[in-house]
This record gives sequence, structure tokens and C-alpha cells, in this order.
Amino acid sequence: MSYIAPTKDMLFDIQHLANIDQVARMPGFEEAGLETAQAVLEECARFNEGVVAPLNWEGDKNPSSWRDGVVTTTPGFKQAFKQYGEGGWQGLQHPTDFGGQGLPKTIGAACGEMLNSANMSFALCPLLTDGAIEALLTAGSDELKAIYLEKMVSGQWTGTMNLTEPQAGSDLAAVRSRAEPQADGTYKVFGTKIFITYGEHDMADNIVHLVLARVTGAPEGVKGISLFVVPKFMVGKDGSLGARNDVHCVSIEHKLGIKASPTAVLQFGDHGGAVGYLVGQENRGLEYMFIMMNSARYAVGMQGIAIAERAYQKAAAFAKERVQSRPVDGSINASAPIIHHPDVRRMLMTMRAYTQGCRAMASVAAAAYDVSHHHPDAEVRKQNQAFYEYMVPLVKGYSTEMSLEVTSLGVQVHGGMGFIEETGAAQYYRDAKILTIYEGTTAIQANDLVGRKTARDGGQTAKAIAQQIEATEAELKKRPSATGRAVAARLQAAREAFLDVVDFVANNTKASPNAVFAGSVPYLLLAGNLMAGWQMARALMVAEDELAKGIDAGFMQAKITTARFYADHLLAKAPGQRNSIVEGADSVTALALDAF
Amino acid sequence: MSYIAPTKDMLFDIQHLANIDQVARMPGFEEAGLETAQAVLEECARFNEGVVAPLNWEGDKNPSSWRDGVVTTTPGFKQAFKQYGEGGWQGLQHPTDFGGQGLPKTIGAACGEMLNSANMSFALCPLLTDGAIEALLTAGSDELKAIYLEKMVSGQWTGTMNLTEPQAGSDLAAVRSRAEPQADGTYKVFGTKIFITYGEHDMADNIVHLVLARVTGAPEGVKGISLFVVPKFMVGKDGSLGARNDVHCVSIEHKLGIKASPTAVLQFGDHGGAVGYLVGQENRGLEYMFIMMNSARYAVGMQGIAIAERAYQKAAAFAKERVQSRPVDGSINASAPIIHHPDVRRMLMTMRAYTQGCRAMASVAAAAYDVSHHHPDAEVRKQNQAFYEYMVPLVKGYSTEMSLEVTSLGVQVHGGMGFIEETGAAQYYRDAKILTIYEGTTAIQANDLVGRKTARDGGQTAKAIAQQIEATEAELKKRPSATGRAVAARLQAAREAFLDVVDFVANNTKASPNAVFAGSVPYLLLAGNLMAGWQMARALMVAEDELAKGIDAGFMQAKITTARFYADHLLAKAPGQRNSIVEGADSVTALALDAF
Repeated sequence: MSYIAPTKDMLFDIQHLANIDQVARMPGFEEAGLETAQAVLEECARFNEGVVAPLNWEGDKNPSSWRDGVVTTTPGFKQAFKQYGEGGWQGLQHPTDFGGQGLPKTIGAACGEMLNSANMSFALCPLLTDGAIEALLTAGSDELKAIYLEKMVSGQWTGTMNLTEPQAGSDLAAVRSRAEPQADGTYKVFGTKIFITYGEHDMADNIVHLVLARVTGAPEGVKGISLFVVPKFMVGKDGSLGARNDVHCVSIEHKLGIKASPTAVLQFGDHGGAVGYLVGQENRGLEYMFIMMNSARYAVGMQGIAIAERAYQKAAAFAKERVQSRPVDGSINASAPIIHHPDVRRMLMTMRAYTQGCRAMASVAAAAYDVSHHHPDAEVRKQNQAFYEYMVPLVKGYSTEMSLEVTSLGVQVHGGMGFIEETGAAQYYRDAKILTIYEGTTAIQANDLVGRKTARDGGQTAKAIAQQIEATEAELKKRPSATGRAVAARLQAAREAFLDVVDFVANNTKASPNAVFAGSVPYLLLAGNLMAGWQMARALMVAEDELAKGIDAGFMQAKITTARFYADHLLAKAPGQRNSIVEGADSVTALALDAF
Repeated sequence: MSYIAPTKDMLFDIQHLANIDQVARMPGFEEAGLETAQAVLEECARFNEGVVAPLNWEGDKNPSSWRDGVVTTTPGFKQAFKQYGEGGWQGLQHPTDFGGQGLPKTIGAACGEMLNSANMSFALCPLLTDGAIEALLTAGSDELKAIYLEKMVSGQWTGTMNLTEPQAGSDLAAVRSRAEPQADGTYKVFGTKIFITYGEHDMADNIVHLVLARVTGAPEGVKGISLFVVPKFMVGKDGSLGARNDVHCVSIEHKLGIKASPTAVLQFGDHGGAVGYLVGQENRGLEYMFIMMNSARYAVGMQGIAIAERAYQKAAAFAKERVQSRPVDGSINASAPIIHHPDVRRMLMTMRAYTQGCRAMASVAAAAYDVSHHHPDAEVRKQNQAFYEYMVPLVKGYSTEMSLEVTSLGVQVHGGMGFIEETGAAQYYRDAKILTIYEGTTAIQANDLVGRKTARDGGQTAKAIAQQIEATEAELKKRPSATGRAVAARLQAAREAFLDVVDFVANNTKASPNAVFAGSVPYLLLAGNLMAGWQMARALMVAEDELAKGIDAGFMQAKITTARFYADHLLAKAPGQRNSIVEGADSVTALALDAF
């Protein structure tokens, strides 16, 4: 089996760190307790291990292809996507009103990880469809909802996000696509969109494009952007498919990775105008698109964790099989599997600690999302909303940046074989590289973290989280184990470094924006590192307690060791990061432009 | 132009850090002063910019291909290699006795960087040929030298290194290829070798394979390995080419990067035995091969610097052109080139500082090599030999590891365009990944650093270098500039971290090998970081002095800023690395094998 879902580790997080029982006490989630989580994850594991994972390498060898406007996906993708829809996976987190299962994100996030581990290229189609569903749920008219949602939730139709244009990447203010109002209330949409994931494909009967464009006469900049539904095929009131709309795929990209996922250039309106339907109100498109973006950003963070997990599994399996040289400690007097070599262990532990730390962080963030939407107490909802929003750029930014390091180590563990494409480790290295770029680069996440999530409230949310971390430290210091105290010391040093940086950001963003934004990505990495390390520290205490009760000793001991490794080798970076951010801003921006 | 050689930066290092004038005072190098360096580098830049660099992307699109045992290289490679040989570049560092130019490594290393920046896949053929030449020079009989060297030095024939077999990668003790002595003094060689760079190609009239194999009855392990010359075509006493030898290329690999460089599986002796000629004495093959390896390891380090430089140039050029969003400091009231955004600056400065730091380190190491071979005073030779040998794993390991980060940042600066293969940034990311693997993985370099370079002399060489660094700190502290003092503080912290680690390694390698080797790669990274940062600190002082004299203000100011950035953002990692190494070993190896 090329992928075995880490169901046990996910359930550990869901139970002990994300507190699924608290989630299940809230209205609407009464049946979403640990048992449900377990049942869903086990079924999800079977599907992804058996159906989706075997198509991953196939997709890399035999990517989506374009001919005369038609995109043909990798053999097997269409059938697998049909099974995906029929299995109810597309509707997992969506409302039962439209045929979904209405499960919490706390469970859904783990399923998303499995799908992405199994096949990131494949998973992008459901991922974008999820975002489109959320945007329609929030801002779509009842008519749009009635026509589109059920088909999308069931996986019969898929969704896309059309933001980027050649001149408008991170800078959406530069969007030029336009929409002309028609007498019947519809719009005619014109323009070119690039980098449209699954913008054209053969896996579903229809594609529901959500498109940013400017209505004639709208203001310049981001305040003049509206959001439209532009279906690939026109849809009758009865839901039947009609004529082809005037949106066409003129090419797909030749990419470093995720090759099976078609990345389309879409041309709207070359033959008279693509029929579009306004979502919500004119000029509020960006706001609605951010609903999709926030959902997608979290999901891309999960992709980072997912590909890290898969790279880890492959590397660990190889390290147990590949025999090369004797162990340095003389414990085996013959050539041994390379997992006996300390540096191979260091690489595997690094991969493992990053992956588990980010998974724990994301799981806790997912629970906060659920609480922020379902808790009866408004104050609790608000606190959890603030926590979740603080975490989104960290889940996205930190988990994807770490996935670059982890997939690189994955190749490294394989030695020369890692560089050979057929081995498969290189695919993860190539695939992962998009994750720090799309749905907002790491720098864009860091801008969000600095501006909206830290400077705006003067660092209050960040400091409130730091207080929770301090409480964890206090608990750790009371532990009988030396491990607990050692981890507490690392956590404290990292938290103090973090607080210095939060103050630096809160105090200087207005007055010295260059100095703060020079350290914005390092701040994101420090904060992500701390949050993941904090959750690993919490996991350590749970594991020690479970171990003491005699529960699942092997797993709990491994969690303790991994948490200790996280603290000693990853959290230990935090003070150095602090120094670079707080003391090193000048040299970032001092070089004259013509000296580059 | 896709590549512009950083001739000025190289000459700065060669003049001020490597002290070419001292090199030129030694016997044999009388004409190899700064003027020669400048003339050679300028000519080298013209050749590589004009002839070699334009073939780089072509090689990726249209790699070497195999058919019926014949390998056809990328169109243009054969002609370019002819020009390379005719221009005397293959012979740059080789003795004039065999048609070479006899220039010092201090100059040759910079030329190597240029060639590798221009086209790493192409450069591998001369790189391996250099290694083969050095092995023959050191260990070959006069007859072998007479037959092979002149043709190789002139670039008419090329060389290979045949070490790896399917079961023998890092572990050469596992080599199984065998050699049967014949009555005429030759041997018949049998076996399969894999990962043989330029093991078959159409760029030269003959290929001189240097092959590790065991003579019948030889001891097991590394002490029973001998080295053989196995030419592709038999060579007559007059140098004329004869029949095809029994060595055949059965396939080439499908790789992540360096696609134009054919990576061959070679089959020796399937039709009766390949004729081989013993190099030196039986059973001393590994020792001779290490001559090639050490030369090649340094050269691979230069490849890391080279690809980092090229990735930097591409990213900097893109950042100056690509217009997206307004600067956060309000300095431009319109969308601006992304180089105005602080995080883009941070990425470019990181790339730049790593590249310049490693170049400076490698340049100083090259000069030590020259002194260790040419200085009249044996004690000076010995000291420089120790210094050079300490530096080789750092030049190889640190420069290649940093090249992974730099080429990744290079993609990142390009945003979504970086993920599109046609942009070209992705090629550097793919190409670089082999550098931490071949000629000994980073872990193998770290083993060398720990075992032969640190533990063996009780850390003496490392500590002697640390004393030189301390002297640099003292000079820095006396500078009038705040920059000098700030850099001194970072350098001191890094040096102290380094000394703690050196003590840890020297004291524990025997008693607690697992603990030491758990931190061997982090030790290498810390040491490499310190050595590069030290050279940047020296460069800072030179630049301040030159600036005060009014010499080349733009360049010198840029060097000062880059050195400051290096200290604040890269050297600042050292104390955290120390903590992980000295305090964190247990968690590296504690996890039970079955828990992975």
C-alpha cells in the first residue's frame, strides 16, 4: 500500500487536543462525537488508500492534457471522482439541506488530509468545489442556491475560483475582467483568467466558475470588483443542462508539480460574452471571494500536512528496507537498514515532528472554527473566531513552508534513488512547491497575520494565546517527568520570543512598516512553530497520562519522543528568529535597488 | 542574457579574502596574480555567458536520450564541449606537462562556478573529467599518463567515476564488481555500475572510465577494492583508437533534474570481460578514488554556489520587472515592481547573502589548497592542508544545502509563474536537489567532518580556526562603524556556539557515537554557516576600507549591507543550532524502530 492513513494520530488529536466531545455538545453536532469521527475516518481511509492513492503516480506520469479546448484527465480520475461523490465525501461538511452530511470541520479537516495525502492533484477538484459551495451558501441568492448547490454538494458538478489575471496575481485590485449588465438581470462577462485549477476537465457534467469581474462603471481598485457565477453549460430552471456558455479553455500549463491537476487559461466572452449571474451585491465580490479564500487557505495548509505525511511514510518505509553500512554505535556487526543511522533518524524525526505538530495545530484550529459557528454563547463564539482567524495564516503558511523542508528531506533519505523520478519521492518535492504560492503566497499570509491579525487589535489575540501557552508551561513544569520540564523550558523561550515579536509588530506597523514587513514571514514561521510546538507539548502530557494508565503504550511513547524532538529541534529555533526579526530589519531593505 | 558572471564579486574574494598575491608569490604560480585572474575570469565569463548558458534550458527540454546503447546529448552540447576543450578550459588547473595551463585553484574555482551557473548539466562532464585526471596524475603509471592524460586535458576524451552499484551507494565496502588478472598484465572487469554521470555520450571520441572493482581473491570490505582504467574504445600505443571495449550503457535514468546530463547504467564484461588497466597498486583503489572524490566534493560545493547565483539573478531580474501592488511604506502611490516589497527584498537578500558567503568561504579554501601544495615551508603547507581538509565537507555540504533553500526562494519570488516550467526558475530547484546527494550525501560529509576532521585531532583544527575568527571579531570591535560591532557580536555568538559543539563532538564521538552523529549534519550546517559568515565579516572590513578610499562605492556599500544581513539573519541561527546538537541528541534516536 503506497499510503496508510494515520487514523490513530488524527483521532488522538481530535479527541485530546481538539476536544471533539465539546464540539459534539453543541447544537447541530450532536451526532458528531468521537465514535462518529472514528467511523468516518476509517471509511475515509479505506476509500483513499484503495481508490485515490493508487492514481497519484499515474497522474504524474500521465497528466491532464489539452486538445482543442477539451481537457482529458488522467485515466481513472473520472471514475474515482464519481465514487468520491457517491460516497458523500464532497458533502461531508456541507449542510444537510443541500444533501450534505453537516459534519464539523474537526472531522472534515482530517478527511481532507487523507484525500490530499492520497493524491494532491486529484484532491484539488473537491477543494475548489468546497470553496465555491461556501461562497454560494454565504452570498448566493436562493435561486442560485437552488440551481447549483445540490449538484455541487453531490459531486455531480464542480466549482472553480477565477481570480488571477496575467497582471493581477497577488494584487486583485488590478483585475480587468468586466461584466456588462443585461436587460434580463444577467451579465455578459469578458476577460482572461489564468491559473484556474480544474478550470476545464472531464470529471463532471458541469463546471461552476466563480469569477471576479468589474461591472461597467464600477470604481477602480478592489472596491469595484463583483462576483459572478458563470457555468460551463447553461442550466435550465429544472436543472437540465443547456447550451455551452462562452467560456473556453485555451490552454493548460506545463508545471513543476501537481501535473494531473489541469491549470487552465480561461477565455470569457470571446464569442459575444459569457452569461454570468451576480452573486450577492455588486462591488462586494472580494468580500465573498474571501469566504472561499479562507476556506481554501486552511485547506491548502492541510495539503502541506498531507504531502508531508505521505513523504514521511515513503521515506520511513525506504529507510527500513535499504541496507547500507554498519551502525556507528557498533550495535549491529554488519550492514544494516539505514534507519539505524542517526542522521537518517534525525531526518525522519524532523519530518514526523513537523507533520504531527502541524496536524495538531490544524486540528485545534478546526475545532475553534466549529465552536465559532455553533456555540450558543456569543462571547465564546467571538473568542474562537478570533483564535481561528489568527490561526488560518499559520496553518496555511507554516504547514506549507514546512512541507517544502519535509519533502526535501524525503528525497534526501532516499539518497540517489530519490533523484530518480520512478522512485516517487521527487513527485512530492515537486508537488509541494505550489503550496507556498497558491491561495496567497506565504508573504500574503504574513501580511494578513501582521495587518489584520496582529496590528489591528494591538496584538491582543496573539497575547491571549500566549497566556494559554503560559498555562501549558505551568502544567508542564509540574509534571514528574524530566521531559515535561525540558519541553516547558523550550516552550517558554519560544513564547517569550513570540511576545517580543508581537510587541514589535503591534508597535511599529504604522510607523515603520518596512521594518515590520521585512520580518513578516519570519514572524509567521515563528508563530506557526510556537503553535505547533504548543500542541505537541499538550500532546506530551496527554500521552504521559495515557501511558501511566497503560493505554496504547507504543503509540503514547512515540508521541512523547516526537514531542520532545519537536521542542529540542524545532522550537529551539524561535529565539534566533526573534533576534533576526527585532534586530535585523535594517539590512533587509537597505540595499540600493540597482545593486541587486 | 540569461546569466551574467559575477566577475567583480569573484575578484573581490580572490583579491581581498583569498589573497591571490600571496598565492602568486609561490613557485609555479608566478604569473597567477590578480591581473591573470582578471583576464582569465573575463574570458571565462564571455565563453560561459555566450556559449554555454543559452544551452541550459534547452538541455532541460530536450535531455540526453538513449537508444540501443547510444546516448545522444542535447543539440549544441557537442559543439560547445569542443569549444570548451579548444579554449583550454579543461586544462585550466592541470599541469603544463600534459598541455594544461597550471593555474591555481584560487582562479580555477571561480571558473568552475561560472561554468556550473551557465549549465550544470553540461558542466558535469568536465567536472568528472577533472577528477579522473587528478586520480591518474596521482596514482597512474607513466604509461597510463602518457596514453590518457594529454587527450583528457585537451578535452578530446572525457572521464568518469564508477563507484556506485545497486547495493553499494554510500557504502563502498559493498562493491561487488570484479577484475580478473590476465597474463599480459591487464585485467578483465565484470560488473554493473549505476548512476554513472556521462557514462556514455557523444561529446568526445573516447571515454576513460575509472572503475572500482575487486581483484580475484582480494579481501572483503574497502581494503579489497582496486581502481582500473577501462576505456570505452581500446587505445593503441600511438594513441589511436581501436576496438570497442566490453562496457556498454544499458540505460540512462529519468531524473528530477540535471536532465541533460546522462546518468548511465554501465554493464562491464557481458561479452567476455572489459579490458582494464590497474591504477597504482591493487587494493588501494579507495584511497585513489578519494583523490577524485575530494576534488569532486569541492567542485560540487561550487555547483551549489553556482546554481544559487543563477537562481538569484533570475529572481532579482523578475522582481525588478514584475509590477504588483503598492509598497507598504507608501513611497510609491501606484503598483510597483515587487522588489519594493520588503518580503521580496528579504528573499533576495537571503539568496544573495548565502551565495556570496559560500563563494567567499570556497575562495579562501581554494587558496589554502594552493598554499598547501606550493608553499616552500612544510609547516605552512601542513597548516593549510588541515584547514583545506576541514573546509571540504563544509564547502560541499553547506553550499549545497543552502542551494536548496536559495533555489526554492527563487521559485517563490516568481509566485505562480515560478511553478510554470517555461519560466525556468523551477529547473534550478530541480537541478539543485542532486547536489546534497551525489559525491557523498550531506550526512556522509558530516561523518567526514565529525570523524576525520574533528574527533581524530580532538578538535584542534576546528579550534585553531576559531582562534582566527576571534581575531576577526577583535578587529571588528575596533571599527568605527556600528555595523562592525553588530557583526562582531553575531560572529562571537556563532563562534562560541561552534566551540561548544566542537567540544561535544571531540569528547563524545567514541563514548556516545549515536549522540554525536545525531547532530552531525546540524554541526556541519553550523560550521559552514560560521565559516561563510566569518568571510563575510572580513569582506565587510575590506569594503568599509575601500569605501573610505572612495573605491567603487556602490559595490562596497552593497557588500557591507550583504555582510550585515548575513550576520543578522543567517549567523543568528547558530546558538539555536548549538542547543539542538548539544542538548537534543536523545530524542533523535529514542523512537522505537517499529514506531516509524
